[in-house]
Amino acid sequence: MFFLAKNKTTKIFMDIDLISKLTEKNDSKMILLVIDGIGDLSTKENPLTPLEYAKTPNLDKLTEDASCGQIYHVGHGITPGSGPGHTALFGYDPLKYEIGRGVLEALGIGFNLLPNDVAARGNFCTLDENGNITDRRAGRISTEENEKRVKVLKEIKLPSIEAFVETVKDYRFVLVLRGEGLEDGVTETDPQKTGVPPMEVRPLNPNAKKTADLINLWMKEAKNALKGMEPANGCNLRGISKDPKIPKMPEIYKMRFAAIATYPMYRGIAKLVGMDVLETGSTLEDEIKTLKENWENYDFFFIHVKKTDSYGEDGNFEGKVSVIEEVDRYIPEILSTKPDCLVVTGDHSTPVSMKSHSWHPVPLVLWSKNARKDDVKEFSEKSCYKGCLGTFHAKEIMPLMMAHCMRFTKFGA
Amino acid sequence: MFFLAKNKTTKIFMDIDLISKLTEKNDSKMILLVIDGIGDLSTKENPLTPLEYAKTPNLDKLTEDASCGQIYHVGHGITPGSGPGHTALFGYDPLKYEIGRGVLEALGIGFNLLPNDVAARGNFCTLDENGNITDRRAGRISTEENEKRVKVLKEIKLPSIEAFVETVKDYRFVLVLRGEGLEDGVTETDPQKTGVPPMEVRPLNPNAKKTADLINLWMKEAKNALKGMEPANGCNLRGISKDPKIPKMPEIYKMRFAAIATYPMYRGIAKLVGMDVLETGSTLEDEIKTLKENWENYDFFFIHVKKTDSYGEDGNFEGKVSVIEEVDRYIPEILSTKPDCLVVTGDHSTPVSMKSHSWHPVPLVLWSKNARKDDVKEFSEKSCYKGCLGTFHAKEIMPLMMAHCMRFTKFGA
Repeated sequence: MFFLAKNKTTKIFMDIDLISKLTEKNDSKMILLVIDGIGDLSTKENPLTPLEYAKTPNLDKLTEDASCGQIYHVGHGITPGSGPGHTALFGYDPLKYEIGRGVLEALGIGFNLLPNDVAARGNFCTLDENGNITDRRAGRISTEENEKRVKVLKEIKLPSIEAFVETVKDYRFVLVLRGEGLEDGVTETDPQKTGVPPMEVRPLNPNAKKTADLINLWMKEAKNALKGMEPANGCNLRGISKDPKIPKMPEIYKMRFAAIATYPMYRGIAKLVGMDVLETGSTLEDEIKTLKENWENYDFFFIHVKKTDSYGEDGNFEGKVSVIEEVDRYIPEILSTKPDCLVVTGDHSTPVSMKSHSWHPVPLVLWSKNARKDDVKEFSEKSCYKGCLGTFHAKEIMPLMMAHCMRFTKFGA
Repeated sequence: MFFLAKNKTTKIFMDIDLISKLTEKNDSKMILLVIDGIGDLSTKENPLTPLEYAKTPNLDKLTEDASCGQIYHVGHGITPGSGPGHTALFGYDPLKYEIGRGVLEALGIGFNLLPNDVAARGNFCTLDENGNITDRRAGRISTEENEKRVKVLKEIKLPSIEAFVETVKDYRFVLVLRGEGLEDGVTETDPQKTGVPPMEVRPLNPNAKKTADLINLWMKEAKNALKGMEPANGCNLRGISKDPKIPKMPEIYKMRFAAIATYPMYRGIAKLVGMDVLETGSTLEDEIKTLKENWENYDFFFIHVKKTDSYGEDGNFEGKVSVIEEVDRYIPEILSTKPDCLVVTGDHSTPVSMKSHSWHPVPLVLWSKNARKDDVKEFSEKSCYKGCLGTFHAKEIMPLMMAHCMRFTKFGA
C-alpha cells in the first residue's frame, strides 16, 4: 500500500498500516502547536528553565483539563535535527523514514523541490595544485563569496537534465538535478579528510547509475568553473537524495492537513508529508490569523513557532522567555476556534546553556474533552513528565490525537 | 561491520549501528557504578527496603543534581541472570546478544576462555545399570566429591583438540574444548527427565558437525571413566557455546573501557564486550584505589560491587544495608576524580525476602552537569521511579551517558 523507502533492507510499516486501518472520518478538528526547541535545562545561573520562568497562565490552565507527559523523538540520548524532530511529531519513526540531507537543505531555503528531483548538499572546499583538498570548508567563506561562485556554477549544463544551484549560507550550497530517470542511492564525494581529492560517486543500485554519471560529470565541470577562485576553488556533494516518498498524512489519517509555519524548512517538511502549506506572515499573530481564516477548510492544523529555538541557539534566556509568553497570550485565541484536541509541545530541546539542540525530552500537554486529567497544573519540564502520559515517543502523538477526536475504531472485536 | 550472531534468523543491529555512527571523541570521562542486586522490596517485617533503610547521605545528595529513573534489563516481569543484566547495562539488548550458559559458567570460575573455545556447562547425574538417568543432579554431591570426578574426567583425550574440565560447585562442572574448527550450534545431552539415557548431541548447522562428534566421543569416554563412581557416575552437557563475538564497546563508542570488578563472572563479561579488566583487590577500597590509579588511561570505568547481591541471596537484610552504606561512603572519593557523568544503578533486584534475583526494576541516578534536574532527593526504589528519566530499558543507559558527555552528534539535519 505504501512506498518502500530505498536503501534499506527491511522496512516494516506496521504502525502506519494499523493506524490507517483504524481510521474513521468525522467532523472533529485538531491543532498541533509546535514550539521549536521549547525544552531547556535548569542551571546554577538560571535555576528555573525559560518555560518555568515565563508567565504562562494560559498554558498552565490548559494543563489542568489535560493529560501531560514528555516526549523523545528518536531515542534516549539522541539529539534530533529539525527533520527527524518533525517527522516524529507527525507520527513517523525517524529511524524508518529518513529525509536526506540534500532534501532538507533544499527545503530549508524554500526551494520548490519536485517529487523526482535529486538534491545534494554542497560544501565549497579548497583544492591545492594537485586537486587535493586542503580545507573542507574553504576557510568558511562569507555568503557573499559563496554567491559569486554559485553564479558560476549555475552556468554548468548537463545533457538532457536541468541542474539548479542555490546558495545556502557561508560555504554551503544546494545542487538540485531535475529530469527523467534520476534516482538517489549514490555515494558522496566528500572523503571527510584533507590531502586527497573529492571522490567520484558510485551508484549503490543499478537504477542510480545515470544519476551517478551525471553527478560525476557535474563535479568535473564544477572543478573547471571554480579554477582560480581560491579559497573556494572546489566543492563536495553530500546527502544526495530525493523526496523519500513518505506515506502521506492525508492518506493515512483520512483528514485534510494544513501547515502554518513561517520558516522554509518546516514548510518543506510539512509538504513532504502531504500537508497543504498555507500562506502566512512572519509573526505569531499572522499565523493565528491564518488558522482562523482557514478553520473551516481543514481538519488538522500544524502551527510552528520558530523563535524559541533561535533564542535557545543564541543562548538568549530572556528572548526565549518572551516568545513563550507571547505564545501563551495566543492560547485563548487558539482555543476560541473550538478544537476537539490541542497538543502543545516541541520538536526537541534547545537549552539556552548549551546553545544547541539537545537530547532532553520535551514537555507535552494534550487538551481535549476526552483527555484523562492528571495532577499537572503547570506547563514545564519538571511538571509535565509527572503527567499521566509519562515519557513516550513523539510518533505516538498522532494516534493519541486521533483517539481523543474519536477518529479511531476499536482494534479487534 | 559487526559479526552476526549465529542461530538467529533476523538480526538487526540498527541501534548499535546508529550509535556507532553518531559517536564522536572528546576528553570526557564517565563512571558506571553497578551495585549488584541493589533493588529490593518492602515487606511487613521490613517496611523499608535496605536502600531506604541505609544511611546514604552521599547518594541522596547525588540525586539532587541529577536525573533519576528506574530500569528494567530484559522486559517487564523478566528476571535477569547476571549475564543479561550486565549486557543490558553495557548497551546491548540481551534478547539479541545472548551469552551461552557454558561460556557464562566458564567465565564465572575465571577460566581464561579464548575466542574460539567451545564451553559447556556440565552436570553430574546418576545412571542405573541400563544407562538411564535416575537423578539429574547426582544427589547434589559435595564440591569435594565433584573434584574427585573432575580429576578423572581431566584424563580424557580427544583427537587433535584439547579438553579442559573444571569443577564449579556441588554437581556442576565446566567442559571447554579448544582447537581448530570448533563451532557452537549443537543440541544438549540433557533429556530434562529421568528414566532415559543422556542424548547424543546433534549439529544444528553443518559447521558444527565436528564439534558434535567430539562431544559425543567425550561423553562416551566420560561414561566409561565415571563407571562405578555412584552416585555421580554419569554427566550431562548443556549450553554448549562459544564467545558470542558481541560488537566490542571500544569500537562502538570509540572510547577506552576499563572494568573494575572482584568476581570472575563480571570480569569475564566485561572482557567479552571488549573492556580492559584491571587488576584489583577484593574490597571496595581496593576498587576505588584502582579507579584512581588508572584514571588517566581510560574514558569509561565500570565498577562492580558484588556483596549487595550476595547478602540479598542470603536473606541478610543488615548485611545488604552495610554494603550499601559502605558504597555511600566512597561516593565523595569517586566524585573527586571529576567524572563528566556518573551513573549509579544495579544489574537486577535481589530482594532479601525472596533470596534470589527478581524482575523488579532497579533505581538509577544519572549525575552530570548536563543532566536535567528533577525533584528526587533520595536514592531509593520509591523515589527514583518518580524521576524525569521515568522507567526505561537498561540498554538506553549507554546512549544517555554518551549524550551527557557530548559524545553524540545530532541525528539528521
